[in-house]
Amino acid sequence: MATRSNSRLADSILYPFANIGHLTENPPVVVESGEGVYITDSTGKRYIDGQAGLWNVNVGHGREEIKEAIKAQLDRISYYTIFGGTTNMPSVELAERLCQLTRPEGMVRAFFSSGGSEAVEAAFKLVRQYWRLRGEAAKTKIISLKRGYHGVTLGALSANGITSNREYFEPLLPGFIQVETPHLYGNPYTQDHEELGRICADMLEREIQYQGPGTVAAFIAEPVQGVGGVIVPPANYWPRLREICDKYDILLIADEVVTGFGRLGTMMGSRHWGVKPDIMTFAKGINSGYIPLGATMMNAKVAEAFDTGDAAQFSPKAFAHGNTYAGHPLACAAALASLRIVEDENLPENAGRVGAYFLKRLKEVQSRHHMIGDLRGQGLMIGVELANPETGRPFDISRNVGGRISDHCREKGVIIRNLADTFIISPPFVLETGHVDEMVDTFEEAVASAG
Amino acid sequence: MATRSNSRLADSILYPFANIGHLTENPPVVVESGEGVYITDSTGKRYIDGQAGLWNVNVGHGREEIKEAIKAQLDRISYYTIFGGTTNMPSVELAERLCQLTRPEGMVRAFFSSGGSEAVEAAFKLVRQYWRLRGEAAKTKIISLKRGYHGVTLGALSANGITSNREYFEPLLPGFIQVETPHLYGNPYTQDHEELGRICADMLEREIQYQGPGTVAAFIAEPVQGVGGVIVPPANYWPRLREICDKYDILLIADEVVTGFGRLGTMMGSRHWGVKPDIMTFAKGINSGYIPLGATMMNAKVAEAFDTGDAAQFSPKAFAHGNTYAGHPLACAAALASLRIVEDENLPENAGRVGAYFLKRLKEVQSRHHMIGDLRGQGLMIGVELANPETGRPFDISRNVGGRISDHCREKGVIIRNLADTFIISPPFVLETGHVDEMVDTFEEAVASAG
Ligand SMILES: Cc1ncc(COP(=O)(O)O)c(C=O)c1O
Ligand SMILES: Cc1ncc(COP(=O)(O)O)c(C=O)c1O
Repeated sequence: MATRSNSRLADSILYPFANIGHLTENPPVVVESGEGVYITDSTGKRYIDGQAGLWNVNVGHGREEIKEAIKAQLDRISYYTIFGGTTNMPSVELAERLCQLTRPEGMVRAFFSSGGSEAVEAAFKLVRQYWRLRGEAAKTKIISLKRGYHGVTLGALSANGITSNREYFEPLLPGFIQVETPHLYGNPYTQDHEELGRICADMLEREIQYQGPGTVAAFIAEPVQGVGGVIVPPANYWPRLREICDKYDILLIADEVVTGFGRLGTMMGSRHWGVKPDIMTFAKGINSGYIPLGATMMNAKVAEAFDTGDAAQFSPKAFAHGNTYAGHPLACAAALASLRIVEDENLPENAGRVGAYFLKRLKEVQSRHHMIGDLRGQGLMIGVELANPETGRPFDISRNVGGRISDHCREKGVIIRNLADTFIISPPFVLETGHVDEMVDTFEEAVASAG
Repeated sequence: MATRSNSRLADSILYPFANIGHLTENPPVVVESGEGVYITDSTGKRYIDGQAGLWNVNVGHGREEIKEAIKAQLDRISYYTIFGGTTNMPSVELAERLCQLTRPEGMVRAFFSSGGSEAVEAAFKLVRQYWRLRGEAAKTKIISLKRGYHGVTLGALSANGITSNREYFEPLLPGFIQVETPHLYGNPYTQDHEELGRICADMLEREIQYQGPGTVAAFIAEPVQGVGGVIVPPANYWPRLREICDKYDILLIADEVVTGFGRLGTMMGSRHWGVKPDIMTFAKGINSGYIPLGATMMNAKVAEAFDTGDAAQFSPKAFAHGNTYAGHPLACAAALASLRIVEDENLPENAGRVGAYFLKRLKEVQSRHHMIGDLRGQGLMIGVELANPETGRPFDISRNVGGRISDHCREKGVIIRNLADTFIISPPFVLETGHVDEMVDTFEEAVASAG
């Protein structure tokens, strides 16, 4: 890692998910600039950004088009509220753009917020008010998946299926239930992916029957699970989710915070599975992280429940929700510019093509290194999980094998994020095969030296 | 209101707290530009912004210093994560700045997020993990005030004491309890403000005893309640809160999302009451809304519980929380520039002085119009509540008296926000007495014509 000279960096910030002592002893790298797939630190060292910020800088760093759009909007107005009868054109145009981009999924309206957790919170509140307006006030429960990640605010966290995210914060919301994820690697049920999809979908169906369909508001899942370790479900799973939700009159929420706008090789993650959800949540790739932004999309079925059809100012059908920064003009202007790049440069297609090459190259590495227990991915969303070759089971966490491999890569100018012994590869979509070769070669070298 | 030509404005956005039909019939005003205390709509009409966006654009619209700071940071890097061992200087410097500004309150560390609700969520998770780390896992409950507003995500909402914000979204989190606010106007207990402060503080103390102090993690309140209708507690109330929290070993959270950085005439709202909280939540005024940002500050007592004193990478003392946009460089750069203006131009002092003049002018109006039931405020945070002069009670809501007065003001180029029949006045701190005169004259005219 680049030399860093002072410990001031860890004195005043409480960093997310980090031990204060660790960061005091190992001060964080100061990121100073970025261009395309590269970032540069305060010592002038350059890195390939294998995580695209935090899987969000999809069009790459320092894009002139986005900078220009932000600057132009800054010279008009940075912020004004969309509460209480005022609006702004960037938010109106972005809502229209999002509806257009999700037309195949049937989305008709956008609700704005400032991040993924907030987009998920809005989805949960939307489904609860929806069922009350439909006269089914008892339908309040939310079902999600174990190892699903939906954010950290206490509502989103209640659906978040990652134990270590939850355990210090109980009690969480009542009526939030998590069921089994169809994760092939190491599962106790079957080694057939499609069969596992059926088994897990059946478990969901039985859980709905057990809870009572009249008490369940919605089911939420990521098209491909991200933070949980890049878990790609079998092709039969999402279509079955849609069938089950229809059968029991439950709303289906696709959490597209990571998968929206191209990461799987299709514009939407749901589209990869050929499924139309009722609600979609966006953040991250919506504007490539240039300004905090989230959005919650809904189809006509949901939107119509909130429409009185009359002009009364106050109505129980008004969605009783909204954050200060909703429809932030700068954030929306950045999104319009970022989405234009995604389309003009055909980036979903590039993510699919370069992602396939990346996976192929990693398969070769896997064939040479028994330490790689599992490899999985779709588009530019790839997970590599280590296993102890002697036992076929995970390494003892205290050996920090994943951490050492990740540090080695950083040393060599490649950022590959590890969550314990699983590597999460989620680069910008402007990645080229030459970058892939450099990343994979560096990674293989790090794996070899950790062996 | 300015003429607006199309209904497209309400077609694709689901607006916060708004009836779709109402906005279709009465399309929102398109805000296009802003300068200082003024905003201009798409027809070229100019308004005095009496709500400072949504009580957040404290230094005024279109400030060159902030625009320049954002542009300069845009040319470096817009976003990079502060998870996993990377950081950026704007977030480090802002954390230091915030610690400096809250030194009288004893704050030593900042945790970053992207808004007020998120800042509050972080505070709640911080206190829960704090007590577990201290070996008191049963201390999880959060007490707050009726009519308190702490945001809309389901955790923040669970502490939010505004019934209409909550009612469609039950069940909320267990163990969130709201007690009586010391609100003089129309209270059933006493017409002596200090006595009311004692009564309400005693009610809190009895509630803590009833719940069991060993189950209560924290108490949260706003130094002056904002969305609840600008409710200024008596001078004895906050000092008593601090005493009670100390007595029962409960953390005191000051929600400074509106009051932080000068609105009450002091740099911090807590400072106005001479109280040191354990945790302070910021958003809005932290960067005057130019980019979404929130922060949660903690004192040494809280921060030390998260410090292992060793350099282990993984630790149960790591705060298990963090949003993608934490420490967003653009948002932090905007905050540094905005806070510089607040200090250089002595804006808290201006808010105090101009706020006092505003209140004095409104008192004159009240003396001439019996329709004004109550008037209250501190600094540039003022509430005006209507009452039916015939009954001394609120008007029938269906008469929409507040809405008509607010519309009349808008027509005349003054934005004064109404929440039903209470007006919330929260202008930028760069307001001058000449603006006050224009606002008050317009308001009086509107009141007279609504009579
Ligand atoms: C699928 C998914 N949903 C929600 C979130 C939460 O988003 P944020 O961190 O912006 O609150 C994330 C963040 O990683 C995510 O991956
Ligand atoms: C005191 C207080 N806390 C929290 C919030 C929530 O902030 P946000 O709307 O940015 O989520 C608000 C918003 O008005 C507030 O006034």
